[in-house]
Amino acid sequence: MRVLILGADGYLGWSLALHLSNEGHMVYGLDNFMRRSWVRKMNSETAIPVGSIQERLQGFFDTFGYLMRFETISMEDYPQLCQYISDIKPDAIVHLAECPSAPYSMHGVHEAAFVMRNNVIGTLYLLHAMRENAPDAHLIKLGTMGEYGTPDMDIPEGFFEVSANRLDGQNKMVRLPFPRQAGSWYHWSKVHDSMNVKFACDIWGLRSTDIMQGVVYGTQIDAMKGALGLIDPRLRTRLDFDEAFGTVINRFVCQAIVGHPLTVYGDVGKQTRGFLPLRDSMQCLTLAIDNPPEEAGEYRVFNQFENTYSVVELAEKVQSVGNDFDLNVEIGHYEKPRTEVEEHYYNPAHQHLFDLGYKPSSADMMAELSLMFFDLMEYKDRIKKYKDALIPKIRWRGEHEEVDRIR
Amino acid sequence: MRVLILGADGYLGWSLALHLSNEGHMVYGLDNFMRRSWVRKMNSETAIPVGSIQERLQGFFDTFGYLMRFETISMEDYPQLCQYISDIKPDAIVHLAECPSAPYSMHGVHEAAFVMRNNVIGTLYLLHAMRENAPDAHLIKLGTMGEYGTPDMDIPEGFFEVSANRLDGQNKMVRLPFPRQAGSWYHWSKVHDSMNVKFACDIWGLRSTDIMQGVVYGTQIDAMKGALGLIDPRLRTRLDFDEAFGTVINRFVCQAIVGHPLTVYGDVGKQTRGFLPLRDSMQCLTLAIDNPPEEAGEYRVFNQFENTYSVVELAEKVQSVGNDFDLNVEIGHYEKPRTEVEEHYYNPAHQHLFDLGYKPSSADMMAELSLMFFDLMEYKDRIKKYKDALIPKIRWRGEHEEVDRIR
Repeated sequence: MRVLILGADGYLGWSLALHLSNEGHMVYGLDNFMRRSWVRKMNSETAIPVGSIQERLQGFFDTFGYLMRFETISMEDYPQLCQYISDIKPDAIVHLAECPSAPYSMHGVHEAAFVMRNNVIGTLYLLHAMRENAPDAHLIKLGTMGEYGTPDMDIPEGFFEVSANRLDGQNKMVRLPFPRQAGSWYHWSKVHDSMNVKFACDIWGLRSTDIMQGVVYGTQIDAMKGALGLIDPRLRTRLDFDEAFGTVINRFVCQAIVGHPLTVYGDVGKQTRGFLPLRDSMQCLTLAIDNPPEEAGEYRVFNQFENTYSVVELAEKVQSVGNDFDLNVEIGHYEKPRTEVEEHYYNPAHQHLFDLGYKPSSADMMAELSLMFFDLMEYKDRIKKYKDALIPKIRWRGEHEEVDRIR
Repeated sequence: MRVLILGADGYLGWSLALHLSNEGHMVYGLDNFMRRSWVRKMNSETAIPVGSIQERLQGFFDTFGYLMRFETISMEDYPQLCQYISDIKPDAIVHLAECPSAPYSMHGVHEAAFVMRNNVIGTLYLLHAMRENAPDAHLIKLGTMGEYGTPDMDIPEGFFEVSANRLDGQNKMVRLPFPRQAGSWYHWSKVHDSMNVKFACDIWGLRSTDIMQGVVYGTQIDAMKGALGLIDPRLRTRLDFDEAFGTVINRFVCQAIVGHPLTVYGDVGKQTRGFLPLRDSMQCLTLAIDNPPEEAGEYRVFNQFENTYSVVELAEKVQSVGNDFDLNVEIGHYEKPRTEVEEHYYNPAHQHLFDLGYKPSSADMMAELSLMFFDLMEYKDRIKKYKDALIPKIRWRGEHEEVDRIR
């Protein structure tokens, strides 16, 4: 298939370009390198060095034998976006070209407005560009499990049925979108996207898979390895550890490596979320791409994660693996920078991807964590250099002040 | 109370400035006159002439004895917005400064992006400006009944309870936001606003009443009358009849006056919605302002309409009153420009405003319609001049082509 990846220079986007090529797909890329500048704005840097896009594309060529077409286009440049899509006529478009950070969006009014505009308007342009230039293509839209929040009930995959006693005396089972209750401007931008994508499917007959993804962690996928089974450094993907663009497990591993206490938020730390390794994310996205919706107008939601874990559980796993690396990892409890519940019911469904054949790469995350320590130990000095980025300062209520350790 | 009206030059905003002043409130205005230019862009004009803001403010001064402070500020000019709010320290802010047109938002990619950005980002700026400068003020946010769409069940006021059988064996009643299923980019922008406003209340303790308003019609409110009980022309509000900014009853009356068939969409025409006269809208908004949420962080939703009517019913009422004016009104059925269901269950709750004392101004709409004919007959020639605006051309599926008459 011809697959266009929007955001192909990112953590997931670059990995997906490799993985899909490895699986025999023809990949096209688009990015405008904003992720690189956002992370610099956070006074940080990817722990694993990544080269310029030219170096990456050379590595790609040497591995897969063809030059991936790549264009530097902003999602807000509608004419160029249309031209590119019309040129390459993709069968599938994977939309990873959003600003993916809750803390960044909570930094202040300008960041909030930027994230909202970048994500919502970018996606709105994409929907129009698809209607005009690729109405039969399959849009794989990256959302987040965070769209659902933590309601006091089981979370379905996008839709649920309620029993309605109507005023006219009829009792009906009515299918409704499951109400979203997000927890940051970023997460809300993703909710708004989800609604907009569904609406475009309804009125224009576009087809889309909206991926509610859990939190991704990990440094490797097999497609980064060259012919000799060794990782080609040019094929590495970035790994951020700052408070805004680093995700929790990736951050914990980096903290462990430089001897910083793992920053569990809150005294209890039982915030529970869905998680999956990078390689599982690639497997799942490929399953969605390989099994497109059959009908024009079909909009479906996949909850994409391997399993749910609490933050404290994650910290203990990272501690345990870190100690195997002789690191003497400490777990710290810090003031919560976010407005979120620390202990709650959490049971989201995730059957759709299993129905398509998703096989989690490992039953526990210990093997993946070992690999991460193995990969990241090498870059201890890079992480140390940006150590200030390891502690959160952006608070949901508006202040910017390092959170204090509670215990 | 000190009330800041955002969008004070508009159909509702200007009327509200008069009504609130009449009720003894101290009113402040903000607008950047975009409504005037949008309507010109639709090749139309308000049926009832309105003067420049200077003329309007002079009329206001002569009637109420004080000069209403008014600033020309765009909602996207954050520093100016903050400065104004910080200067006047309003007790209540009524947010009417959005682009209020479904067809306009469906015209094409640029209009869709404009409406989405203008409304969602404008509101996001406002929320931040309130947090920084007026955290205790009461935000009255104009949403629309269209946010709910037409689900096959009773529509509550913003929230509903569902009975959840959880995996852990517990059965819980869970309160959830009622899922929105809007029908245009405009309506979705309002949904996104609603979610963003609620989130700001949750995390920052703002307080807000989110008004899901039905479709407003009418030309008069009592506050437009001077000391002698006569309407002061300088106090008139605009009345649009083009396909984008004219609402259905206002359009029907204008069509009847120039001898154009009333444009019912679809063969059946039983699309049912909530409606209310302009004077009831003013009464309800004042009730919300006079009864603010008591607690910081409170977000409440009012469904604001007098009653529900189908489009065919409305056409028949307009026909009946028009015929009393010797107009020989014809009802026409046209292709549907919109993607919407023509016949559906519709039973929205609207108890909150009745609980606060809302008294509909009349039991049927005939008296109000008579007044509208009386006011608008005078401007028959103005309406005739822009007669092309009376037929819809913007279609939800993307084309721009006048809809054909079916019967």
